[in-house]
Amino acid sequence: MNTQAPLLTLHSFWLSLATYRVRIALHLKGIEFEERAHDLSKGEHHSPEFRKLNPAEAVPALEGGTRQPLTQSLAILEWLEESYPNPPLLPTDAEGRARVRALFLITTADTHPLVVPRVQARLVKQFGSDETAGKAWSAHWFREGLVAYEAQIAPDSTRCHDEMLSIADLALASHLIGAARFDVELTDFPRTAAVGESLFSIPEFANAHPRLQLGAPG
Amino acid sequence: MNTQAPLLTLHSFWLSLATYRVRIALHLKGIEFEERAHDLSKGEHHSPEFRKLNPAEAVPALEGGTRQPLTQSLAILEWLEESYPNPPLLPTDAEGRARVRALFLITTADTHPLVVPRVQARLVKQFGSDETAGKAWSAHWFREGLVAYEAQIAPDSTRCHDEMLSIADLALASHLIGAARFDVELTDFPRTAAVGESLFSIPEFANAHPRLQLGAPG
Repeated sequence: MNTQAPLLTLHSFWLSLATYRVRIALHLKGIEFEERAHDLSKGEHHSPEFRKLNPAEAVPALEGGTRQPLTQSLAILEWLEESYPNPPLLPTDAEGRARVRALFLITTADTHPLVVPRVQARLVKQFGSDETAGKAWSAHWFREGLVAYEAQIAPDSTRCHDEMLSIADLALASHLIGAARFDVELTDFPRTAAVGESLFSIPEFANAHPRLQLGAPG
Repeated sequence: MNTQAPLLTLHSFWLSLATYRVRIALHLKGIEFEERAHDLSKGEHHSPEFRKLNPAEAVPALEGGTRQPLTQSLAILEWLEESYPNPPLLPTDAEGRARVRALFLITTADTHPLVVPRVQARLVKQFGSDETAGKAWSAHWFREGLVAYEAQIAPDSTRCHDEMLSIADLALASHLIGAARFDVELTDFPRTAAVGESLFSIPEFANAHPRLQLGAPG
């Protein structure tokens, strides 16, 4: 890609962990983009205008590089990897790529979908959940995800896979931010905590943090 | 690959929709494999032996083609695509691949993780859910997924994407089997239903159906 490439627009919400994963990749690959914030707490993703962007009414959506906006953090990251290959965020060997994708999916398939607002709303409606119960629910799943990460991260690592920065690290960073939001202690997960500490010291991760984004409470 | 390639072992449970997705791909690509069933209803995936196979205690796991077993249906399918490229189950263009992956993730990220046994067990433990409430919960999420598919499938299609058989179709087939299991009507989803009807007439899909697998009730 060169300076002739159209400017990408990342449709986002400051609190969104899925958007955070994509934002880090854009930073790491040095891709120029603008961000357009949608206030999901006000339901702006349910508007007819937003539905044209993503019929699934979710962020992130990445617009400008393709005919139709791209959705789903993993699909967007694979597209970025194919379209802007440097620096690579997937290993060069097929087994390594499979492992990194599986690590990515620990949070994006097995954790994060269980705690998003639409699930919280359903817990309230169907089971009379309240704020305390909703937080306990979320903390439980983030803890389960941490168990899975801890079992798969090698001792003394600074990265999820082979000391190479990969999309698995983007996912783990988002997982750790989610875990912190629900006061999950990392005491039992020293390998995961060590990788996290290393990741959050990287400027592209630090600058992409949800609390620094447009719309975040001062 | 040729006849010298090591035999692959698919670790499975007959009812598993994630295993079903991988089984279809193995059939479509004409890959020889053996299947080893684990009775998840008896908790066999929590054994120390199984945890060595997959620390996340879930099926599918694909053993034999790599140093470590592969896990997570999407990661396994991407590995199969890279290792056994014919017939392709991803489009040749980057935007098409992103769209197919996003369609795949409607069920594998936004639906299926919400209804699996560990989530049902948590609903029972935390909210006193029972069988009726658990089924209503599952039906709700399969219906939500159908809304997302219906909005993204073109009219008069027989496939999810561009009339090409892709991993999105594997995901949609698994979604429809899940929806049927919880008696979700397809009346409001004619495009999705038409794609499903076409897919289930394909022998590789039909033969991979959960109810035909080892361990399924006669």
